[in-house]
Amino acid sequence: MLHQDDNILKFDIPEIIFGRGSLSKIGQCAARLGGEKVLVVTDPGIIKAGWIDECLRYLQQERLRYVVYDNVVTNPRDFQVDQGVSLYLKKDCDVIIALGGGSSIDTAKGIAILATNHGTVHEYAGCNLVHHPIPPLICVPTTAGTGADISQFAIFLDIRKKIKMCVLSRVIMPDISLIDPELLTTLSSELIAATGMDTLTHAIEAYISSLSWPMTDPHAIHSIKLVAEHLVTATKTKDLTALEGMAIASLEAGMAFSNAILGAVHALSHPLGGLYDLHHGLVNSVLLPAVLDQNLSHARPKFAYIAQAMGLELRGMRFEEAVLHAPEKVKNLIEDLELPTRLSRLGADAGDIPIMAEMAQDDICMQTNPCSYSTQEIEAMYKEVW
Amino acid sequence: MLHQDDNILKFDIPEIIFGRGSLSKIGQCAARLGGEKVLVVTDPGIIKAGWIDECLRYLQQERLRYVVYDNVVTNPRDFQVDQGVSLYLKKDCDVIIALGGGSSIDTAKGIAILATNHGTVHEYAGCNLVHHPIPPLICVPTTAGTGADISQFAIFLDIRKKIKMCVLSRVIMPDISLIDPELLTTLSSELIAATGMDTLTHAIEAYISSLSWPMTDPHAIHSIKLVAEHLVTATKTKDLTALEGMAIASLEAGMAFSNAILGAVHALSHPLGGLYDLHHGLVNSVLLPAVLDQNLSHARPKFAYIAQAMGLELRGMRFEEAVLHAPEKVKNLIEDLELPTRLSRLGADAGDIPIMAEMAQDDICMQTNPCSYSTQEIEAMYKEVW
Repeated sequence: MLHQDDNILKFDIPEIIFGRGSLSKIGQCAARLGGEKVLVVTDPGIIKAGWIDECLRYLQQERLRYVVYDNVVTNPRDFQVDQGVSLYLKKDCDVIIALGGGSSIDTAKGIAILATNHGTVHEYAGCNLVHHPIPPLICVPTTAGTGADISQFAIFLDIRKKIKMCVLSRVIMPDISLIDPELLTTLSSELIAATGMDTLTHAIEAYISSLSWPMTDPHAIHSIKLVAEHLVTATKTKDLTALEGMAIASLEAGMAFSNAILGAVHALSHPLGGLYDLHHGLVNSVLLPAVLDQNLSHARPKFAYIAQAMGLELRGMRFEEAVLHAPEKVKNLIEDLELPTRLSRLGADAGDIPIMAEMAQDDICMQTNPCSYSTQEIEAMYKEVW
Repeated sequence: MLHQDDNILKFDIPEIIFGRGSLSKIGQCAARLGGEKVLVVTDPGIIKAGWIDECLRYLQQERLRYVVYDNVVTNPRDFQVDQGVSLYLKKDCDVIIALGGGSSIDTAKGIAILATNHGTVHEYAGCNLVHHPIPPLICVPTTAGTGADISQFAIFLDIRKKIKMCVLSRVIMPDISLIDPELLTTLSSELIAATGMDTLTHAIEAYISSLSWPMTDPHAIHSIKLVAEHLVTATKTKDLTALEGMAIASLEAGMAFSNAILGAVHALSHPLGGLYDLHHGLVNSVLLPAVLDQNLSHARPKFAYIAQAMGLELRGMRFEEAVLHAPEKVKNLIEDLELPTRLSRLGADAGDIPIMAEMAQDDICMQTNPCSYSTQEIEAMYKEVW
């Protein structure tokens, strides 16, 4: 499904506007895309941090009208998309701004899909099932982790079935990703660390993906390097230069994974997010070392470059030896960030492992992992970090 | 003019479709962009090579109608754009495909501009002067050098004044760049070498540009590496793997320079193209070593990485020493390609040096060179390679 034309590769990203203070351009961007009435999708934390007030001022400066939908939570639910699209249609909006983390952006994508394609998001879960163009969409990420502002992915929680649904379609790529590193300054240290590990997972999985190519590789490896350089400092000090480094890391990881897709970490992570409503970045962080250990023999040379990007001096080292350092470098980073390393600590139930293993095997992200796994092997990976 | 907001950087590229045999997707691309009647812009050499017949077959398969404008020459003239837009309007076209080198693509961009903005291309020469969106535009490059398929630039020859006009506007970026390395197999060795040196110039100038940033740098440096690896083999053997490497090099150089802009080589090259109608890649190749010698002290660390990307082993070498190897590596490559190294051999007249130096100083590409030059210094660079 992801390999329709073996020889033909694609690379598609939104227009990117990047820089400290770039939020001030949001009104001009919305106006340039033909907007007159904006639906702003966000969550209460972002409102409290003051970013929505600032955003609305910029919209006013361009004489744009707006309405705010702020009922977004982590792992956005299908019914929240329904609420949002009702508001969009009732208020005659014509452009959507997502200002928030991955959850706000995915909710905005869901609203955009239903605004022109109708029905419910369940109908679009899968690959290339969205057919009608969506309204103009501008994403302003407030975490350095999601990549949803760059990507052709959107993930929703089916609240009844407790599963995560993945929509993958070129049609849902935002028009503009506006990235202002200053927005990261109001994040908690815990969220900087967890979303930063999401970035690292995106970058590593895209780099070793079976669909990686010279257009995605330089961004993936540079993203890994930036995470190694900046994530600990960003988490511990909220230094703006470190946060800016993480903003670029997230952007580049997004460019890589939206075009090379992901791998087994995300496949194993989605069932946990669906069943227990856990934070996506945190779950990825716990799973990453265990999956890397298993993937190690299937993308050998690339693991040496991952280790190098994370600070290993390759000089004078045998390549086979360098490869083994990659999971170790990742584990050290997680330790430095003081993030949890066991799924049981996050509140998961070991009795669900068999069903989660089956869901993980069917996950769309497993298709581009450098190797395939039996459900027994997947169960073993879950148990490794339980 | 190029630095309106010092903190805010932009990165914008078309959707990219890449791979051997990807020309077969051209009909689907045109249909997807809403086209029913296609204007195909090309030159007689491409028709003779058989690529237009193949392209038209793919359009027929999608039941698209078409008309071909094939009066394109090197350094496309203003009046050719006028001819093309008359045909576009008279035949009720609604999408444009450029299938050719930089000249075909720039002609297509000119036609696209006038189709919706009217007037003549002279009115749009400069920065961000194109206001109305252009018709859907798909570019299929047949050289690995132009970058026009990726870029926000178009260059036209004012045939009366004998100057090159540069249009730089986000609005003229193509919708899709479709890159099929097989199209390069019918190029002459001379053109592979000259257009390949254009790619190298794009990559180096973007890499040391004052607007370069982490989004453009990885592509610029990777492009330089690919040119060093593949250009001589591509030129001498037309090996498809080497041509594919050059196609990626051209793509990445285009991504870098469209967003970081260029420098003094292009500023000095444009007057020569305008006055003597010389091949752009060839002129860039002659000028590149002389300009690098002068730029050397203004982007020091980056020149060491350029030398490294071109094969220099940095290990154990002082950084200052490594820097000096960059122009040498470029000169060696030009020697291996057996390309001319003196402007006088291309038919330029030394009496024009003072007027060319003034034109070069005013050129938009000079604004992003890592340093500025007096007209005397520019004259000295011209004389260096005369």
